[in-house]
Amino acid sequence: MQKEFSLDDILKFEQRYRATFVNSLGGFKSLVLIGTANESGQTNLATFNSLFHLGANPPLFGFIVRPDAVARHTLNNILALNEFTVNHVSETFFRQAHQTSARYDADTSEFNATGLTPVYKKDCKAPFVKESHIQISAVFLRKVDIEENGTSLIIAKMKAVYIPEDCLAADGFIDIEKAGSITCSGLDSYHSTTKIARLAYAKTNVPTTDLKLTQ
Amino acid sequence: MQKEFSLDDILKFEQRYRATFVNSLGGFKSLVLIGTANESGQTNLATFNSLFHLGANPPLFGFIVRPDAVARHTLNNILALNEFTVNHVSETFFRQAHQTSARYDADTSEFNATGLTPVYKKDCKAPFVKESHIQISAVFLRKVDIEENGTSLIIAKMKAVYIPEDCLAADGFIDIEKAGSITCSGLDSYHSTTKIARLAYAKTNVPTTDLKLTQ
Repeated sequence: MQKEFSLDDILKFEQRYRATFVNSLGGFKSLVLIGTANESGQTNLATFNSLFHLGANPPLFGFIVRPDAVARHTLNNILALNEFTVNHVSETFFRQAHQTSARYDADTSEFNATGLTPVYKKDCKAPFVKESHIQISAVFLRKVDIEENGTSLIIAKMKAVYIPEDCLAADGFIDIEKAGSITCSGLDSYHSTTKIARLAYAKTNVPTTDLKLTQ
Repeated sequence: MQKEFSLDDILKFEQRYRATFVNSLGGFKSLVLIGTANESGQTNLATFNSLFHLGANPPLFGFIVRPDAVARHTLNNILALNEFTVNHVSETFFRQAHQTSARYDADTSEFNATGLTPVYKKDCKAPFVKESHIQISAVFLRKVDIEENGTSLIIAKMKAVYIPEDCLAADGFIDIEKAGSITCSGLDSYHSTTKIARLAYAKTNVPTTDLKLTQ
């Protein structure tokens, strides 16, 4: 049985109930850990679930930063060093990834607090998460303030990408399911995936067909 | 074995290979059909995979529109009527959802072309997808042009939400997996999900615990 909720219904919900409800509606989401450091080398790690593709040439992406304490450490560090890392989350360490969202003070690194391992790679002052199978270093380009609710859109460009060699298909597709990346829904629900199909580029007057690749 | 790709490597990829590669890196994504109509009532339906949560109070979300022909129909219609619908995609009709991305001309409704069923609900001039289990009507708020690559961010507010009654948990969580929503990766890979766990709100000095709900 389908149930309707009006905007008025949603606005009358208790605050936490509303946050949980509305966060569920956006569908399954990207789940990444963003690694940063400040000018003293103090590291920070935080989960984000709003990462989205902006463009391939140049390789751009965006994500939303909320005006709360946890996100502010990440934002301040990104603005300080102008770079950061994006690390896909696997089922083997999703509990530690979730734990980074606790409100640790600025002197505590979430790497230390959760046991995830910082690792540094050439040309990037921000730490990667060693446990992560898909890692990206990125350069901050621009912050766009969303006046409707005080959040900010961060626009960034990829600088280097690290992926498992056996997860790259012949056409450039990276099999993130094979690499162990998981997805999330709502504020706190974690899900593994099972591939249904890859579909060929859609054309008018041609039935949808499965994409067959020789690798 | 991990393989590194520099920004230079990515920029030198063949165009289609690069699009496939970079689109894979953002992780699993929300998969929705956006339903619109123009002032004459001509309908349009298109898949989007960049929907993200912006805020719960008021319930806001965003998505990215690319400057191509398919997306332009959607954007023109949103700007004409100031409202549109968002419909989660299920495994039962993901092939039809994918087929909406073919470059149909402006006189062809993707509803007719793919066999998906338009349905109208009170106070919304745009059509919903009858086959979808989670449907949202939304009001257009603002278009933010992304000067870096000519895309646009659309910011919108939810107006009404329709969900299966038995998918709503006691704390406001909507079980979109139970509702049949699927996720996607890259440009063309579709995946069902299996819940791993919901985790309780993270606190410093408290180990991560599973969320147990009595419904």
